[in-house]
Parts: sequence; structure tokens; C-alpha cells
Amino acid sequence: MKSSSSPPAHDNSPADSRTETSAIIQALANGKNKRVRKLLARMHPGKVAALLELLDAEQRLTLWQQIDPELEERTLHHLSPSLGAQLAGDSSETGLAASDEADNPNSSQLEAVRMALAQGKLKRLGKLLQRMHPAKIAGLLESIPPLERSRAWSMVETERAGKVLTYLHDEIRTALALELDLEDLIDATEQLELDDRVDLIQTLPAELGNQLLHASSQAQRQQLEAMLSYPEDSAGGLMNADPIQVRADVRAGAVLRYLRLLERLPPQTDLLMVVDRKGHYQGALRLSELVTAELDQRVSELMNRDIAGIAVDTNGNEVARLFQDDDLLSAPVVDAHNRLIGRITVDDVIDLIRENSDRALMHMAGLDDEADIFAPVLVSARRRALWLGINLITAFGAAWVIGLFQATLEQLVALAVLMPIVASMGGIAGSQTLTLVIRGLALGQVQKGNIRILLNRELGISILNGILWSVVIALLAVGWFGNWGIGAVLGAAILLNLLCATLAGWGIPLLLHRMGIDPALAGSVILTTVTDVIGFFAFLGLATLLLL
Amino acid sequence: MKSSSSPPAHDNSPADSRTETSAIIQALANGKNKRVRKLLARMHPGKVAALLELLDAEQRLTLWQQIDPELEERTLHHLSPSLGAQLAGDSSETGLAASDEADNPNSSQLEAVRMALAQGKLKRLGKLLQRMHPAKIAGLLESIPPLERSRAWSMVETERAGKVLTYLHDEIRTALALELDLEDLIDATEQLELDDRVDLIQTLPAELGNQLLHASSQAQRQQLEAMLSYPEDSAGGLMNADPIQVRADVRAGAVLRYLRLLERLPPQTDLLMVVDRKGHYQGALRLSELVTAELDQRVSELMNRDIAGIAVDTNGNEVARLFQDDDLLSAPVVDAHNRLIGRITVDDVIDLIRENSDRALMHMAGLDDEADIFAPVLVSARRRALWLGINLITAFGAAWVIGLFQATLEQLVALAVLMPIVASMGGIAGSQTLTLVIRGLALGQVQKGNIRILLNRELGISILNGILWSVVIALLAVGWFGNWGIGAVLGAAILLNLLCATLAGWGIPLLLHRMGIDPALAGSVILTTVTDVIGFFAFLGLATLLLL
Repeated sequence: MKSSSSPPAHDNSPADSRTETSAIIQALANGKNKRVRKLLARMHPGKVAALLELLDAEQRLTLWQQIDPELEERTLHHLSPSLGAQLAGDSSETGLAASDEADNPNSSQLEAVRMALAQGKLKRLGKLLQRMHPAKIAGLLESIPPLERSRAWSMVETERAGKVLTYLHDEIRTALALELDLEDLIDATEQLELDDRVDLIQTLPAELGNQLLHASSQAQRQQLEAMLSYPEDSAGGLMNADPIQVRADVRAGAVLRYLRLLERLPPQTDLLMVVDRKGHYQGALRLSELVTAELDQRVSELMNRDIAGIAVDTNGNEVARLFQDDDLLSAPVVDAHNRLIGRITVDDVIDLIRENSDRALMHMAGLDDEADIFAPVLVSARRRALWLGINLITAFGAAWVIGLFQATLEQLVALAVLMPIVASMGGIAGSQTLTLVIRGLALGQVQKGNIRILLNRELGISILNGILWSVVIALLAVGWFGNWGIGAVLGAAILLNLLCATLAGWGIPLLLHRMGIDPALAGSVILTTVTDVIGFFAFLGLATLLLL
Repeated sequence: MKSSSSPPAHDNSPADSRTETSAIIQALANGKNKRVRKLLARMHPGKVAALLELLDAEQRLTLWQQIDPELEERTLHHLSPSLGAQLAGDSSETGLAASDEADNPNSSQLEAVRMALAQGKLKRLGKLLQRMHPAKIAGLLESIPPLERSRAWSMVETERAGKVLTYLHDEIRTALALELDLEDLIDATEQLELDDRVDLIQTLPAELGNQLLHASSQAQRQQLEAMLSYPEDSAGGLMNADPIQVRADVRAGAVLRYLRLLERLPPQTDLLMVVDRKGHYQGALRLSELVTAELDQRVSELMNRDIAGIAVDTNGNEVARLFQDDDLLSAPVVDAHNRLIGRITVDDVIDLIRENSDRALMHMAGLDDEADIFAPVLVSARRRALWLGINLITAFGAAWVIGLFQATLEQLVALAVLMPIVASMGGIAGSQTLTLVIRGLALGQVQKGNIRILLNRELGISILNGILWSVVIALLAVGWFGNWGIGAVLGAAILLNLLCATLAGWGIPLLLHRMGIDPALAGSVILTTVTDVIGFFAFLGLATLLLL
């Protein structure tokens, strides 16, 4: 970390060669390969050669891995023939292997990368990464353990590192951003779209985020600050401040001439925003309408007034629903006075949709969807310990209920054999209702106007299934233990537990939802507590009353 | 259903008025309101008035609800003043209430619709529906029980019914399509994009799907048949056959003139496909590049060669990943000879992503994501019975294991109190690993190259947590029962069960995945079986060995 606190000067003045050498050796030792490559790029090939001759065999090979093909060629002239031949041989082998691997399908890219890492063939690794899409690199980095990840990350070119960061989940993104020198991080993020930069700044530690913010140009900083003031999952947090604006009274031909002057449109531009003199949003002009229009038609005739401006404080889920319902590719964002302040593009909406459903799945198991699946074991263990601890309270609650009936169990040990069946059937039935309601809430299918009908239906289902399965289970128990009383009590307890489970599966998520707690996260633990406690209590309680 | 087998003739010749009247009365009785409106539209206002006078009060009001404002006005002239005033009064009240309700936010739309249904105010309902987006109508139809749904559906205008169908989940979609007369269904789907029609045909019963197919024009039928030949979740099943094609040697100005001749581009067109003389795909020309280009630049200079053609047999998930990684809005689909045969648009990819994650969540609870949550209770009960039955086998397996140790339990009833804790902790730990692997497989994070590292990590986590919690639980048990032996056995059993649970949570989804079974569907049941059986066996077995 020491090196990151003293970034090298930006000027190209020839540095003292002893300092240069020691800086490179230190960066090599710290695994700061990006830094090494940058230092090398400023050195004369002769000096690089001298440095190579100086180092011991292992360090030499490590340094050689960081020299790019062009510098390699020029450095070879300065090296002693024997050393040159040895190092050059290493390179050519590298090139061959890399081209072989490139022909293989995706799944083996991971293996190729891991093999290159294991063998210390960083040059080969760099070539493999160069050929990969940033999203693929991100996926790959998430699929390997932290140590290997850091080494692979050091071989990603700085210009592409920013894009890679945007595809990573929060935890890994933060960790890898921290591994970069501040200067590199700034370089890496300079070319990102503003909304991606906002995203990044929001996930980084506050201090680093601020430094990144202050490294931006004055104009950009103002835009970034405005965007940062909105919650991450709102229209304001999703938007980019780059809409192309036109006036309603202009003709199509003039718009086309104006666009030609701009030379380039922002990525994912499918429509232009029509605003009045004061910046109030009036409608949108699709490029597909523009290119098919007669040149003398006015924008006001061509524009689409149905594409409504999205209020900047609109919730992210609502934005996603708008995009889905209207098949939008991009949409205008307006402030409280209907002034155009940005636009949302569909790629960010897709990310949001994917993240949201991913989160529900992970939360149901008490996991964090943004966490690194290869985080250090101790870190992950501590996170999961919490969930196990909460569950333990549940389990002890159930045990406590059983404990109330120890006398009964002593007399009729068959009860102990059968009691898990009661709890288990209740748990399954309850979790079906729970999942249905959680999804219904997410999709908007379950609302105030129909929650009662839904409850009636679910109760109806659980009565039918309760009767069916309690009879089946009762008969099986009678067959097993030859005791009609046990069968009857078991059946009654299961029927009762199924009904309570349904009621709980329906009521718990609605209650949590109203309290602003994610029902997916807490729902299943609370449900299990209910079905266990009621299941054991009903079964053992009825047995105590009726069988003793 | 009888009326749908004899669709009315398409000609406008004046039908015999007695037949007309009886047809209307029959359609009213069957709740076929679309049919009623169609019949009414062909009748003279005088005849409509005569019919109204003929009917009894209830039928009259029902019929009046189907008369649109224009016909209403003209019919009123022919009615007796008292009856006219009575019916007109009903209408004006309707109009007022509807406009009030329209100002309310979404959540109360459902209540407004249900109230209109309950009061039989179908005219008000029709107005409410007219103002709603097809996607909203679909959401609304999914949120109400089947009977109300049918009545609301009958009030959706035929021209919009097709679009509504595309937003529905399979089960409800099929049911509502079957409620339409064939003629109406054909009218309703005529304006749909081809990919939406393919989707619809694929979900309908084969015979009806065929009729719909044969009602298409010759040219469309060929395209539809080609699209139907691909699996639903492949690039071929997702594509539309409407790409705009241009040649590489043409100049930008000529392309713009060509587009102006076309007058309209297909929806969601953000790029044009560049093909050679024989239809081979060469690259894509973004509209945003076209509008910023100089008019004399050639397409070959402007086009983007990085947008690769997607092979028609590419799996849907792979398509979704491509769209996400490259932030695509649309993409070309090519056959095995690289000939352009269609294009995929991002709206369909969003639907796919949402459906896939929805499916995982629902499958984890043994539910069908395409099912109607308001299906008849008996139907839903039968579906869920299967899942409960499978779970029962699991539960009896666990009970059987406990049964093996009845003699032990008789001697030490404290074991019966504590044993659910062992099973429960194992279940929680196992389901965390299971969920992690299921998600990792879906995202491509978990691959052949890293499954072993993942296992080692998960085992490490479960050893740490196992030691922590087995000590805590053992001490709690000692405190409760004052017996060090029980505590030791309980702790050991929990540690063992946590390890086995992790192994199972890791291995089961990988095995199911390799066998081509959805790990989300079967994974949790199998896991529970393992953790219950091992948990009880370890705890009671150790107790038998060590404590008796």
C-alpha cells in the first residue's frame, strides 16, 4: 500500500536510474504489475536490459513477463546473446500456447487462465485477457480465489480496467479498485460513462470515492455530484446526463444536419429529446422516425408524446416496469418542474432487473448477493454464522416446546419418531404460500384489493391437501405402530399445522412488506419458527390430552 | 363454447332480425360480450331500441352496458322517453365515477375494476380498461379470480386483446385465448409482431395454434412456420424476421433515401443489417452512426463489424448474456451459412431474463412459475399435493431413522427434545451452499475449473461454523439437561451434519445440472432428505454408542 500513497510524477523528465530500478523492484515484489509496466514504458531499452542482467533468475523472469512485445524486441538488442535467447524462447512458447487456447470454448478459458497463473506465465495471461470482453474478464475474476484474482487483475490493461470494474459485484469491485494506484484508478475510470462512474463512486469507500470525484473535470464533477445526490435505485441514480435535445419547431432536415455536426451520439441513443426554450420536456423523437421522415417535416409532427418523462425520484422497480411494459430502449428523466435532466438506458434497467431477482433468491437463504463467493473463509464464515445463529434461536424454540412434553414422550416414544413429519409438512406447505406471496408482491400481482381472495384460496388448497395427507399419514402411522390413537392425533396435528402454515405463509410477507423489511430475507426463518412450534405443540399437546 | 364453433359470417348483408335478436340474447347469456358488441355494431339503432324494450329489466341493463357511446346516443332517440331517461342516467353516473377513479394511483385500479365487476357496471369497466396499458390490463387480469377475469376479459377491446395476451403467463394466456371466438382471436392477433404470434401459437393447444397459423397470409405463414421450427428458448425462437437490410457499397445518403421510401421501420430498430448479394451477414449499421455520417460515406466505412451474428441455434441464456455483456439493443441472427435470417430485440431478452430468475425462485418451492395463482382451488391443490407427497417420503425416511433408535429414546427422552436442532442446523447450512452453487451455475461463476476450490472453501466455512455452533449448542444443552454426555454427542452430531450438509449442498446441484435436471426444482428436497437422515442418524447413533 505504501507505493499508492506516493504516485509517480506525471512529467516525462528522466528520473534517476537508481530510483527507477529500486521502484521497479519494489513494485515487482508487491505484485503491482500495472505499475511495473508503466515504469518500464518510460525507460530506455538499454536500461531495461541492464536491469534484467542485474536481477536473479526468478526476478528476471517476473520482470520479463511485464515487457510488451514492442519493448521486448528493442530490449533484446541490448541483452547478452545467451540471456536474450533464453528469454526470447520463453516468449515464443507463450505466444504459441495462447493462440491454441484461444480456440477453445468459454469453459476452458477459466482453466487456461488458472494454468497461466499457476505457471507464472503472466505474459500469456495478459494476452488471454486482452482478447476477452470486459464482462468476460469480470466473470473470470469472480470465478477465482482472491490471490489469483489479484495477480490476474494486475495484468488487465489500465484502459480496460474501468470497464471491467463496472461488471463486478460490489465486494469484489471495491477490493480490486483499492488494489489500483489512485492514478491508475483515475485513468481507468476516465472513459467510463457517467452513470457507471456514479455507480463506482457509490460502492467505493467514501474517501476514495471523493478523490475520484475531484479528479474529474469541473463540468463533469457538477454532473456527477447531481447524480450522486439521488438514491442508487431511483430514476436519478440510474440516469445519464447525456440526452441530445432538439426543439419542436425545427424541421427534420435541420435535425439531421445538427446530428452530423455532433459527429457522434452517446451510446444507446435511440431517441432525441424534444424540449422547449426553458428545457421543459415535450416528447421524444425516435431516430427510426427521423430517418424515415420527409426532410421538411417538423419535429412536432414526428415526435412521440406518449413517451412520458420519468420523475427523477421514481423508484427503480417502477422504472423497470415502465421499460418492460412499453418496450422502451431509453427514456427521459425530468425534475419536479418537468425539466429534462437526463435519460435512462435499457442496459442499466436490465442490470437492475437481474440484480433484484438475484437478490430475492440469495436472501431466501440468508446470503448477500453482492458478496464475493471466494471471499476469505473467515470472512464468509462470520457472515453465515449470523444466519445460523438466528436459526438456532428458532431451533431452540422448537426444542423448548418439545421439552414441555417430556413426560408424554417418555410414555409414548412413538411420538418422538413421528413428530418431525408434522413440522416438515407444515414447513413445505407454508413455504409454497410464502414464495407465492413474495413473488406476487414483487410483480404487483398481490395487492390490497385481492389479498383476501388469495388467502381464501390458499386456505382452501391447504384444507384439501391437509385432509388428503393427514389421512394418508395417519393410516401409515397406524400401520407402523398399530395404534389408532396415534394415527388420529398425527392426522389432526398435520391438518392443523398445514392451516397455520398457510396463514403464516400468507401473513408474514405482507406484514414484513408493510414494515419495509425484505420478505425474502426474514420470511423463511420466521415461517419455520411458526411451523415448528405449532407443529410440535399441536402434535404433542393433542397426544397428551387424548392418549395418556 | 357452442357459439365459437359457428363464427358469424364476415359479410355485411342484413341478417334476419329474429336470428340477430336470439344471437344477441344467447351471447349475453354466455357472457360473450365481445360477440354482443360486434352484433350490435351491425344493427340499426331502431332495432337495438326495440330489442331493449323487449328484454326484462336485468337483461336490458346487461345489454345497455355493451352499447358504445356513439350507438347509445342514436339508440336513445328510438327509445320511449321513460326508458331512455332511466338508461341514460345509468350511463352518466358511470362516466362520472370512472373519471374519478382514473386519478387514483395503480393500487386502486384493481379495486375500481373489482367494484365495477361486482356492481355489474361493465360499461364503466370498459372505460377503465380502455385507459389502461395492455401490460397493466394483463397484470390486472392475473390479479383477479377466474370468474371475474372472464368478465373483465370480455370487456377488453378486440384490437387490444392480442397485445394483452402477450403479457400474460402461459396458463392464463391459454385460458383467455380459448374464451375468444376463433374469429376474434384471429382479429386480435393480426397486428402482433411475428415473434409474439409465435409465442402465442406455441402456448395454445395444438389445434387452435394451427388454426391461427392457417389464418395468416401466405407470406407470414411461411415465416411463422420457420420460426416455429426452433425451440422456444433459442435464438431462433426469440427472433423476429423483420431486419432492414442494406449493402456495404451504398452511400449513407442513399440509405437515408431508401429508409424514407420505407416510411416506417419495425419497432425497436436501432440498427440496419449489412448483407452481401447472397444475404450473408457482414456487419451492422447503427442508426446513430447513420444520422451522424456524411452523406457520401459508404456503409462499409460506417458499419460495425464487432456486432457478431448470433447462430440460430444459440441457447436463450447465452443470447441473454451476449445482450448484457455488449449492451445490445438488437442483434442479427444467422443460419449455419452466416446468412441473415432475423433479428432479436432487447425487449424479448428482458422477458427471458425475468422469466428465468422467476422460475428459479418458484422452483425452489416446488411451484410452477407459469401457473395462475388464482386457478381453481382443486387444480392448485392437486399440483401442490405432488410436492407435499414427495416431501412426505423424505419425512418418513427421517422418521424411519429415528424409529431405529426407539430403545435409546425411551431411556433418554432428552434426545427427542434436542434432535430437531441437529436436523435444522444442517438444513440451513446446506441450503446456503446449495443456493450459492445454483446461482453460480446460472451466472457461469461455478465451472469445472473452480468447483474444487469452491468445495474447499465451503468446507472450511462449515468447519469454522460447525466448531463455533456445536460448542455453543453443546453448552446450552449441558446447561439445560445437566448432562455433559448429551452435550458432547449433540455437538459432535452437529459438526458432522454441517460437514455433510455442505458436501450435499455442493454436490447435489452439480450432479443434477450434469443430469440435465433443474437444480432449483429438485435440489432442496434431496438436500433436506440428506440433512435429516444424517442428522438424526449421527445424533441418535452416537448417543446409543456413547451414552447407554
